[in-house]
Amino acid sequence: MEKTYTLDKALEELKELQLKLAAYEHAAGLLQYDGATTAPSETADNRAVSLSVLSGEIYRLSTSDETADLLEYLDSVKESLSEKEKRIVYLMLKDIRNMKKIPIDEYIAYEELVVKADAVWHKAKEASDFEMFRPYLEKIFETTKRFALYIEPDKDPYDHCLSDYEEGLTKKTLDVFFEKLRSEIVPLLKKISAVPQVDDSIRFGNFPEDKQEELSYYLMETMGLDLSHVGLSTTEHPFTTSLGSHLDERITTHYFTDDFVCSMYSVIHEGGHALYDTGSDDDLAYTVLDGGTSMSIHESQSRFYENIIGRSEEFCTFIFPKLCELFQKEMEGKTAHDLYIAVNKAQPSLIRTEADELTYSLHVMIRYELEKRIFSGELEVKDLPKEWNRLYKEYLGVDVPDDKHGVLQDSHWSGGLVGYFPSYALGNAYGAQFLAKMEKTVDVFGCIAKGDFKPINDWNRENIWKHGSLYTPARLLDRVLGEEFDTDYYIQYLKNKYNKIYF
Amino acid sequence: MEKTYTLDKALEELKELQLKLAAYEHAAGLLQYDGATTAPSETADNRAVSLSVLSGEIYRLSTSDETADLLEYLDSVKESLSEKEKRIVYLMLKDIRNMKKIPIDEYIAYEELVVKADAVWHKAKEASDFEMFRPYLEKIFETTKRFALYIEPDKDPYDHCLSDYEEGLTKKTLDVFFEKLRSEIVPLLKKISAVPQVDDSIRFGNFPEDKQEELSYYLMETMGLDLSHVGLSTTEHPFTTSLGSHLDERITTHYFTDDFVCSMYSVIHEGGHALYDTGSDDDLAYTVLDGGTSMSIHESQSRFYENIIGRSEEFCTFIFPKLCELFQKEMEGKTAHDLYIAVNKAQPSLIRTEADELTYSLHVMIRYELEKRIFSGELEVKDLPKEWNRLYKEYLGVDVPDDKHGVLQDSHWSGGLVGYFPSYALGNAYGAQFLAKMEKTVDVFGCIAKGDFKPINDWNRENIWKHGSLYTPARLLDRVLGEEFDTDYYIQYLKNKYNKIYF
Repeated sequence: MEKTYTLDKALEELKELQLKLAAYEHAAGLLQYDGATTAPSETADNRAVSLSVLSGEIYRLSTSDETADLLEYLDSVKESLSEKEKRIVYLMLKDIRNMKKIPIDEYIAYEELVVKADAVWHKAKEASDFEMFRPYLEKIFETTKRFALYIEPDKDPYDHCLSDYEEGLTKKTLDVFFEKLRSEIVPLLKKISAVPQVDDSIRFGNFPEDKQEELSYYLMETMGLDLSHVGLSTTEHPFTTSLGSHLDERITTHYFTDDFVCSMYSVIHEGGHALYDTGSDDDLAYTVLDGGTSMSIHESQSRFYENIIGRSEEFCTFIFPKLCELFQKEMEGKTAHDLYIAVNKAQPSLIRTEADELTYSLHVMIRYELEKRIFSGELEVKDLPKEWNRLYKEYLGVDVPDDKHGVLQDSHWSGGLVGYFPSYALGNAYGAQFLAKMEKTVDVFGCIAKGDFKPINDWNRENIWKHGSLYTPARLLDRVLGEEFDTDYYIQYLKNKYNKIYF
Repeated sequence: MEKTYTLDKALEELKELQLKLAAYEHAAGLLQYDGATTAPSETADNRAVSLSVLSGEIYRLSTSDETADLLEYLDSVKESLSEKEKRIVYLMLKDIRNMKKIPIDEYIAYEELVVKADAVWHKAKEASDFEMFRPYLEKIFETTKRFALYIEPDKDPYDHCLSDYEEGLTKKTLDVFFEKLRSEIVPLLKKISAVPQVDDSIRFGNFPEDKQEELSYYLMETMGLDLSHVGLSTTEHPFTTSLGSHLDERITTHYFTDDFVCSMYSVIHEGGHALYDTGSDDDLAYTVLDGGTSMSIHESQSRFYENIIGRSEEFCTFIFPKLCELFQKEMEGKTAHDLYIAVNKAQPSLIRTEADELTYSLHVMIRYELEKRIFSGELEVKDLPKEWNRLYKEYLGVDVPDDKHGVLQDSHWSGGLVGYFPSYALGNAYGAQFLAKMEKTVDVFGCIAKGDFKPINDWNRENIWKHGSLYTPARLLDRVLGEEFDTDYYIQYLKNKYNKIYF
């Protein structure tokens, strides 16, 4: 039965549809958040039952024939749509059109594969046994590539995967980016490894949880987070989530009573994500444009606050008196400069998620290189562990003792996230370029020294946050920077910082 | 389009439908729980948007033509259904059939009325201004009565309302119940008021929140709650909620640092609700039979643990050493008997929710009497405050200073809950009758003296909890007791207890 639309009616339906999707995503997000924060220990199965119903409904709402008809109609009259409406229709329709190009039985088989692969990966990691995971990983890479070719037969399949997480991203851009990083950072790291390591003893001691919690709220307020819309909880692994819309945001942290630095920078990092999300214009609430436009732009904000601001000497100087007040005994005889040095210690390591600012991008680069070579056929999955270990030795100078601390460390591949890693590194580089632009009109570090985040937040809100997902990452960068993405900003930032600290 | 069912297919659909309903109710329940526990202060509007979508979907799923067809089909072949299936179909179909008897425009008007009435009630209570609320309350009583007559034209409309909350409950039963209560408890209360009041100073002092929290978990474990399925949080007003199924239960409490008794008995009360819910047979999960069968049976369990067990001398003696350990300084020079006396202080008061065990049912009786007389036409809404105050003076001996502390104190009427109050009082009486039966095979207070809840819980599980909502309250009582509901058990229990304490 063909439905006859009018523009007004169709836009009304589009609004309703997005509202429903937001509600279901609110519910699903809250179920997951509850699982990570408050839920009793043996309630995961019960939660999984409800999550599966809600996800099924989200999938149905997003891809039903009725939804497809509505969006195709709106696409056919897109000249009459506003810029926002056009972007909403484009984003929602893209998924449906892509989905239709994949044979349904193959799609279902893949969904099942990913569920099994994730379970197997957990066991394989525990046992440090890559062979156990290998057949699943082979199928995941094979299927990802096959699907990419179904959707865009004329495009390089790895470019398709990259673009899936970062609209418009290509190997061409990343090759330039990582080559520069490699040629500059690897030698710098070797130089650092040859000189005596800095003293980071200030971070260790006895830091009661309630005092650390006080610090968390102080940091959130200082950063300009609106605590009436942003909540804080504790979880095993810190994260940020929007519930329903950017008007209800939750960040989490994890307190280690022997090291206050972990939680301190988690809060600033997640706080950066929360600033970006809650900075969306209110009229984007309950639309698919609400919240950040991509993972890499999101990371550009979280890492901007965590690293560029939070690990600056100015911020360390600003925050030090608060630390002395909270941890009087532990801070005795220490200085703000000790803090600055300690939080910027660079040291090659095995695990990506524990890496410091300087080495982090090298971990990502290794994953990028491996994915790219598997897609091109140069590398086979069975040879992944050997190559992984070789690259860790070459770039980071570390010996990988086993697969648990090597190729099996991340959950991404087992979940089918291929092409996702590079956005982690891009965010760092975007942040450095944003800083350069921001400094033309804002006395960034002068403000930080006073704990005054307002001018910085205002700049970010105006240029980045308020637009939500209205622009592609590339378009946003172009609007904000007025020039091409340029890795040199980031390289220079790292070189200046670490030369000052180590030499 | 008529759908052709087979029994197997229809039962499969029924299972799916209940699973979906459970998932949406999980989500809606969690949104409300989050709002009361963790959510940032200014996120209620955002939550309301999502809740409205979820409630709409629950309503649609419960009442759609498709659902009605499915249930009518199953009802038509009910001879082939199991006892559980029959009960599920009956419960789900009842709502749909009732709904269909109400003209849809009148139903929508009523829904709107209730939303407005609730907002007006809040303001009227704040201003202690009954006249502001009166027109809404008049419409609510009028509509409730009209709807009752649409649904059951041949039944007394107030009986219909009572039965809506407590299947099969009638004025006839309640008249007997309350008359006995009135004739026995009112004189007892007068006698108590004439003698010197007991000393309850043990409950007041300085009781840090973390120590009270330790007490909460100790109580929950002692009661036999499975902490891997039952969580504890703090809220303004304590409550219990099941999420998804009885496998994920949450109770809440509120700590007052100057009085540990409030939270202690909240935890035991809510813990009683949680024992009942989590005691459902696991095969009832994700069906409409999961959890307790009615409000009054629920209250019979929560008040059994709170009052009959928790306020017994045996329990006070058992718990006192733990109190001494947690609140060493405050318990100095006090005894378990002091605690027993303090937690059983009886004193007429104005507010139902703050009433003690002896006077509580009198508050309920007043509301019952007023509702009944409004329905019969003997009393007009405009005369409610005057009558309310007169009855409080007559039964409780207190002078109501204003409507805020009188007729406007409860939220029930503004939300359309007419006929709901009596179940609060019935639960108390059921509990006393259960106790008498239980004592025939279990040494109840011998167990309590040792803190051994297992034989008591086993009895309740076997007789009450495991059946979920499979039986009507009346049928359940009949199965458990093997005799008629008899108020005398409750009267005797109260008289024994309070005579011992006061005379």
